[in-house]
Amino acid sequence: MAFDTIIKNGTIVTAADVFVADIGIEAGKIIAMGTQLGPAPEMIDATGLLVMPGGIDSHVHLAQPSPPGIVMADDFETGTRSAAVGGNTMVLPFCLQQRGQSLREALLDYGRKADQACHVDVAMHLIVTDPTPQVLGQELPALIAEGYTSIKIFMTYDDMKLNDREILQVLDVARRHKALVMVHAEGYDAIQFLTEHLESEGKTAPYYHGRSRPVAVEREATHRAISLAEIVDTPVMIVHVSNRQSMDEIKRARERGLPVFGETCPQYLVLTEQDMRRDGMEGAKYVCSPPPRDSESQHACWEGLQQGIFEVVSSDHSPFRYDDVAGKLAPAGRRSFRYVPNGIPGVAARMPILFSEGVVKGRIDLNRFVALTSTNHAKRYGLYPKKGTIAIGSDADIVLWDAGRRVTITHDLLKDGCDYTPYEGLDVTGWPVRTILRGKTIAENGDVSSDPLGEVVTRTHKA
Amino acid sequence: MAFDTIIKNGTIVTAADVFVADIGIEAGKIIAMGTQLGPAPEMIDATGLLVMPGGIDSHVHLAQPSPPGIVMADDFETGTRSAAVGGNTMVLPFCLQQRGQSLREALLDYGRKADQACHVDVAMHLIVTDPTPQVLGQELPALIAEGYTSIKIFMTYDDMKLNDREILQVLDVARRHKALVMVHAEGYDAIQFLTEHLESEGKTAPYYHGRSRPVAVEREATHRAISLAEIVDTPVMIVHVSNRQSMDEIKRARERGLPVFGETCPQYLVLTEQDMRRDGMEGAKYVCSPPPRDSESQHACWEGLQQGIFEVVSSDHSPFRYDDVAGKLAPAGRRSFRYVPNGIPGVAARMPILFSEGVVKGRIDLNRFVALTSTNHAKRYGLYPKKGTIAIGSDADIVLWDAGRRVTITHDLLKDGCDYTPYEGLDVTGWPVRTILRGKTIAENGDVSSDPLGEVVTRTHKA
Amino acid sequence: MAFDTIIKNGTIVTAADVFVADIGIEAGKIIAMGTQLGPAPEMIDATGLLVMPGGIDSHVHLAQPSPPGIVMADDFETGTRSAAVGGNTMVLPFCLQQRGQSLREALLDYGRKADQACHVDVAMHLIVTDPTPQVLGQELPALIAEGYTSIKIFMTYDDMKLNDREILQVLDVARRHKALVMVHAEGYDAIQFLTEHLESEGKTAPYYHGRSRPVAVEREATHRAISLAEIVDTPVMIVHVSNRQSMDEIKRARERGLPVFGETCPQYLVLTEQDMRRDGMEGAKYVCSPPPRDSESQHACWEGLQQGIFEVVSSDHSPFRYDDVAGKLAPAGRRSFRYVPNGIPGVAARMPILFSEGVVKGRIDLNRFVALTSTNHAKRYGLYPKKGTIAIGSDADIVLWDAGRRVTITHDLLKDGCDYTPYEGLDVTGWPVRTILRGKTIAENGDVSSDPLGEVVTRTHKA
Amino acid sequence: MAFDTIIKNGTIVTAADVFVADIGIEAGKIIAMGTQLGPAPEMIDATGLLVMPGGIDSHVHLAQPSPPGIVMADDFETGTRSAAVGGNTMVLPFCLQQRGQSLREALLDYGRKADQACHVDVAMHLIVTDPTPQVLGQELPALIAEGYTSIKIFMTYDDMKLNDREILQVLDVARRHKALVMVHAEGYDAIQFLTEHLESEGKTAPYYHGRSRPVAVEREATHRAISLAEIVDTPVMIVHVSNRQSMDEIKRARERGLPVFGETCPQYLVLTEQDMRRDGMEGAKYVCSPPPRDSESQHACWEGLQQGIFEVVSSDHSPFRYDDVAGKLAPAGRRSFRYVPNGIPGVAARMPILFSEGVVKGRIDLNRFVALTSTNHAKRYGLYPKKGTIAIGSDADIVLWDAGRRVTITHDLLKDGCDYTPYEGLDVTGWPVRTILRGKTIAENGDVSSDPLGEVVTRTHKA
Repeated sequence: MAFDTIIKNGTIVTAADVFVADIGIEAGKIIAMGTQLGPAPEMIDATGLLVMPGGIDSHVHLAQPSPPGIVMADDFETGTRSAAVGGNTMVLPFCLQQRGQSLREALLDYGRKADQACHVDVAMHLIVTDPTPQVLGQELPALIAEGYTSIKIFMTYDDMKLNDREILQVLDVARRHKALVMVHAEGYDAIQFLTEHLESEGKTAPYYHGRSRPVAVEREATHRAISLAEIVDTPVMIVHVSNRQSMDEIKRARERGLPVFGETCPQYLVLTEQDMRRDGMEGAKYVCSPPPRDSESQHACWEGLQQGIFEVVSSDHSPFRYDDVAGKLAPAGRRSFRYVPNGIPGVAARMPILFSEGVVKGRIDLNRFVALTSTNHAKRYGLYPKKGTIAIGSDADIVLWDAGRRVTITHDLLKDGCDYTPYEGLDVTGWPVRTILRGKTIAENGDVSSDPLGEVVTRTHKA
Repeated sequence: MAFDTIIKNGTIVTAADVFVADIGIEAGKIIAMGTQLGPAPEMIDATGLLVMPGGIDSHVHLAQPSPPGIVMADDFETGTRSAAVGGNTMVLPFCLQQRGQSLREALLDYGRKADQACHVDVAMHLIVTDPTPQVLGQELPALIAEGYTSIKIFMTYDDMKLNDREILQVLDVARRHKALVMVHAEGYDAIQFLTEHLESEGKTAPYYHGRSRPVAVEREATHRAISLAEIVDTPVMIVHVSNRQSMDEIKRARERGLPVFGETCPQYLVLTEQDMRRDGMEGAKYVCSPPPRDSESQHACWEGLQQGIFEVVSSDHSPFRYDDVAGKLAPAGRRSFRYVPNGIPGVAARMPILFSEGVVKGRIDLNRFVALTSTNHAKRYGLYPKKGTIAIGSDADIVLWDAGRRVTITHDLLKDGCDYTPYEGLDVTGWPVRTILRGKTIAENGDVSSDPLGEVVTRTHKA
Repeated sequence: MAFDTIIKNGTIVTAADVFVADIGIEAGKIIAMGTQLGPAPEMIDATGLLVMPGGIDSHVHLAQPSPPGIVMADDFETGTRSAAVGGNTMVLPFCLQQRGQSLREALLDYGRKADQACHVDVAMHLIVTDPTPQVLGQELPALIAEGYTSIKIFMTYDDMKLNDREILQVLDVARRHKALVMVHAEGYDAIQFLTEHLESEGKTAPYYHGRSRPVAVEREATHRAISLAEIVDTPVMIVHVSNRQSMDEIKRARERGLPVFGETCPQYLVLTEQDMRRDGMEGAKYVCSPPPRDSESQHACWEGLQQGIFEVVSSDHSPFRYDDVAGKLAPAGRRSFRYVPNGIPGVAARMPILFSEGVVKGRIDLNRFVALTSTNHAKRYGLYPKKGTIAIGSDADIVLWDAGRRVTITHDLLKDGCDYTPYEGLDVTGWPVRTILRGKTIAENGDVSSDPLGEVVTRTHKA
Repeated sequence: MAFDTIIKNGTIVTAADVFVADIGIEAGKIIAMGTQLGPAPEMIDATGLLVMPGGIDSHVHLAQPSPPGIVMADDFETGTRSAAVGGNTMVLPFCLQQRGQSLREALLDYGRKADQACHVDVAMHLIVTDPTPQVLGQELPALIAEGYTSIKIFMTYDDMKLNDREILQVLDVARRHKALVMVHAEGYDAIQFLTEHLESEGKTAPYYHGRSRPVAVEREATHRAISLAEIVDTPVMIVHVSNRQSMDEIKRARERGLPVFGETCPQYLVLTEQDMRRDGMEGAKYVCSPPPRDSESQHACWEGLQQGIFEVVSSDHSPFRYDDVAGKLAPAGRRSFRYVPNGIPGVAARMPILFSEGVVKGRIDLNRFVALTSTNHAKRYGLYPKKGTIAIGSDADIVLWDAGRRVTITHDLLKDGCDYTPYEGLDVTGWPVRTILRGKTIAENGDVSSDPLGEVVTRTHKA
């Protein structure tokens, strides 16, 4: 057997196994594992390192339109660069349909943005904001057939929210054509009601963002989304779950036998609402939706990872520059949390945080880490076995991980387009030292290859 | 002590006690209980009979507008006549605001309909269908202050449903002015979605009414109503609960410490969806919303009565004439369950059914029967201690009950304005033999006094 | 009507009602309630006072044998004296069978102790410690038929514990002859195991009493007791429940439809394990079993009262003199919590604590207070309607309660045979000002009639 | 690379992955996987077959002492022969300490029985029936250190049951020395009580075996075992769980964060108590403990597999010859289910049943099948990564599986020492066609190699 590259003597971790072996790569694929492979033109010594499937982050926002005066801080180039630094070999960003726009037009837009720009492989979810008969009857079925098998919908945000009727229609299309619907579950009307009450009381600091969307708001929407999916009889993924009550909705649905899946994010595992209390506008650096909750909620989310309520951990990377945000809030009449764009960056920090807080602290084992950061994403979103594991025939998407390296997270390490990280100063143990995409090293010790090698991956059906 | 009337030697039942005594009545009020009262001008021998607080049915629809071509079968005269026959001394009908109408106008309308017509005492709930700023800011606060302390809202029906924002606003007014909001919890959009699917498959018989609003539809709306009340921080009463999953929502809310109350009805205790399967249009006689479910759901509702999840049993009396309904469905293009008016009569059958199926069959005791049919209604809706019990100072609203009488329910016994009863042929043990309103006998063995003695009762605040 | 005594113008409270009326008493019984009774030889003005059923404390230990060197601090005279001061008109103490003794012998013993000594009425539970064939086959059936319809068993304590086989046999006799079994649910073997571990680590201070019987020990025994009763198919009362996990066992059993009842006590509502941490041997004043837990457990117990998991609140009055206890622990080799007798006094403090912490603080209403302190005890233990309510025909057992009186609890107010109260210094609002037993005032403002008027009450069957 | 054997072109399944590759084996170990391995002296074509880790059955009784007149139907030779036929490469039988015997003596006995006799690899669990100070203080710690890291205890059976004190002591040794305790959870006293009641009513047919140990008996013991482990703070494995209530105990324990694990068996997935109702003594063929329950329980057990409540499926193979059993019950005075030995054979049927009813029917996926039949056993019992997976460095323990083969199970296919199978006539899809132990084929299409190649595997610590 002839190999282009061999990764020697690493400790290979899959979602089930841990063992020491060499990996032989040819033409970007893993074609052999064994005790004594080689030689090959490129020999990578992985002695003492973990050799894991490259991270797949299935919830990443890049180059999306933003409120007036704000530009999303990451385009496909900088966002995927940061992803690579953080040990990922693939991300799934969103193609956002704007109202009045066709899905095809939106895809062309995002395709242009991604073209030649990506450092890791990508596949797009479709965000449906305008489910016209044309969209429901023609475009979605055709696009699902072409491999766009995941659709995201929003229950809140002025320019994106669908009403229950529209949600039912999208779910029905998903059922008939076998796509998976991802739901941002927060109830619009309740948020508006609470926001107005808070503002009328002068409670406009970033901290009140959290008060405007309490647990009951998220739990209600979660229950509603699950119920609508149950009525239509189709699977649903509840993304970015922040608290125990919402988790319990997912758990009960699963106990009723429903295919309801859950995702959580690092912000719900290591941040709390107290972070939004920081001085002045500093709290705005932690504003995301749902908001971080309290320490009991953090504890609950860890339990959800242990007990299988969550099957994926994503970053919900939504990058904005703090300078822009703070500037935006300067004008009179706009000094309210209402105007803070919702979202924080995290694509590079996701894996180190979950490794350090999860594996090193004994909350999850290595196999579960791999499942939560890579394998389950690939399986759920129709990318497996091409992506998401270390197995014969799979793409050689691999991260070499130094389990003992101690790093203090600072923004400059993360190489994204923002000007801060909400995890600044967090000490972690374990760090990605080399990221390999289809056999090619794309990042090493924080340096990213100048040549963006990422491709758009076409998915097979899966729901 | 001088009495107008003495009820001798009956077995008095309250929500807590059972004991034998005489009751002395003067000027419509109970002024004494004792072992040897009397004599008095009117001596009523209750030896061997149960002497219980007159039934209060807090969920009764009378003289409401109906779909074109249909007239509600009971006005205030016939509806309260039937109530009296069934052992009730009070009902709480609804004053329905039509869109564009003010609440005051609506109240004047219903006041005219009720004036001089009622055989039992009445107090009106307000149905808010058009929560304009005027209604929310002016009318509701004023009317609550005048004693209209209960407000009903609908989450379904084209001409009555409120959206979440409107629900939040009504709840907020209720919180600030201390009224109780009653919720019809079924989700409109899901019902429409399912109705269209069923019709497109030619499934239009009455039975499919049930399929168009499955348990998930009711459970979702129940969860949503509870969540909105939780967000606003005000009590809520979920009416006509039909199944375990909705009950569990109420139970969990109570376990979180929320003031969430529940009501069920005889149709969920003794009917099932199979009744809607009867030949031809006969199934239409059982069409109500939520629909009767399966036998496991019946079992669950009985458990809810035993375990305190429900605090009231009402009839949700919604009377239509079967001849009208069947006629309405005759025209081409209208042969769908969609056009069957939702609702069944039951004001007279409520207490006998609960007594026979509940007390006689050992599922609940006499005290709980009194609580569920009278005392809890009075307490929850601001009528206690004037109404709802047998105690010194309370109105002498009393039903004499023959616990051993065996009766087969037939429509002619019930004296309502319908042309059928959904409980036709049901054998019951225990029957109201005399109904006494403020000391006056208004019904005896099915004969109702020709003189309507009922009054409108003004309530004190209560939420 | 002629009365011996009239209680004028009080606010009568039953388990369901609150109303103002006079009460007419003749020959020790309530024969009338009304607006204008009288006159009578004795007129008691209750204006502004609550008039409630006299308290019934169904869990009181009097004159039981104790560890060597210790004498139980209350005999029937002092214990019932204290009960009367605290607003009670009845207590249910225990007749403890010692191993080798017949139940008849034990009853004769306790009968002699009680004879002519009691200030309130009494009825005895039987503690079975030696379920010989004679006891199971002859004595118990006969005694149940004579009205000893409640049997207590212990799952711990060297000289009282029954093994599972014996428990099943006692439950089986109870099922066949319709008695109610009360269970002290803590697992003996686990307590021994933990006690030895703690002692081996030198952890012998009173505080470690709690560590020797953690929640899991109580929950396990609770689950076991419920399971054995389920297997035999007979009701069971779990006494002195201290925590949420045990409550959840009761709740789940009830949800399965089982007749499982629960009792809690003031010590679990206002004390915590921290009280056992007090200086030196002071912690011994709070040693009871199960031990007080943490504040979350307190909160849970209050929820249990609100949600109906508990139907009675008793004192588990188990009086020892602190001087004796402290002395007993002086000798070398005995300085361990193991030698502290388990139990604290509380018969007089029970009602004031529950009133102040429950009613005044808005956790329970007046009706529930009456149910928890009197009515439910009478109903559950076969004494109703003779005892436990204010109704025509019932014994005139009444407490007049000043709802606004503020009192700081001190031991000298309680008139028991102990030398301390664990509630020393607790401020309460609401206090019993007059206790009336079968029409006779037995205590007034802390002074007890010198003449012990209490009688032994024979019960009718009930399980 | 040089290989002794290559398995070509099979579809390899691990607990996480599915992929097509060749496997290269040398000296009994997997040393390579790749797309084009070879050649090698032995080439096994696996085209179209699943290539899975050989089954590990961690709950198998072989050559244990039996009631007088009965000999266990399988010794180590026949039992492991049947295991090999059924696709297993390893079993974990029990070394049963008889009372009065030391563990060392017992191990010598079972070692002699196993020596040179086994067709698959074996490792022994220790059954402790006599936890003397010597056993607890000396033998167990030493044996655990030698790799006997799993200990089974019984809560029922006359000659094996431990009381709670003894259970605590064994758990405590396990905690200190890091062994895992497996518990047979049924309550002895309750079984005796019910057995006597049933016999006194003449209910002695095999069917009443089930009535003598209802769900409450198993649930209670499960709760107790979990509680004792919680008190000691050590992991516990509840074996052969049969029903939802016991599952819920495990689930709740895990939700409290406790390391409580669960096992179920094919008999709870495809048999019911109705099988014990078969004519005459035929019902005895299905008598095992816990007994098969009803169809709802089957459904629950499948849910437990899906939701992760169970981590292993074992056979609880307990082989008796029906002829012996039927004979044993012939003598007068012994015609009771009490005398039917508890246990049924199943080591060969386990994997085909779980594959057909689980994978083929869509209840579990292939990865979960591998986890439940092999990987999780290896991980839990300290055998991983030597056993339980297909990975570089692992023993080449492999089963080739024809996923489409349709087979009707009959006893003659299973090659055990019994004279029946309880699964006679069950149609399954999917069958093991070749079993490979450390690179050597030990069974092929039902034929077992005459040379017993199995070895005793020494385990590393694990709890």
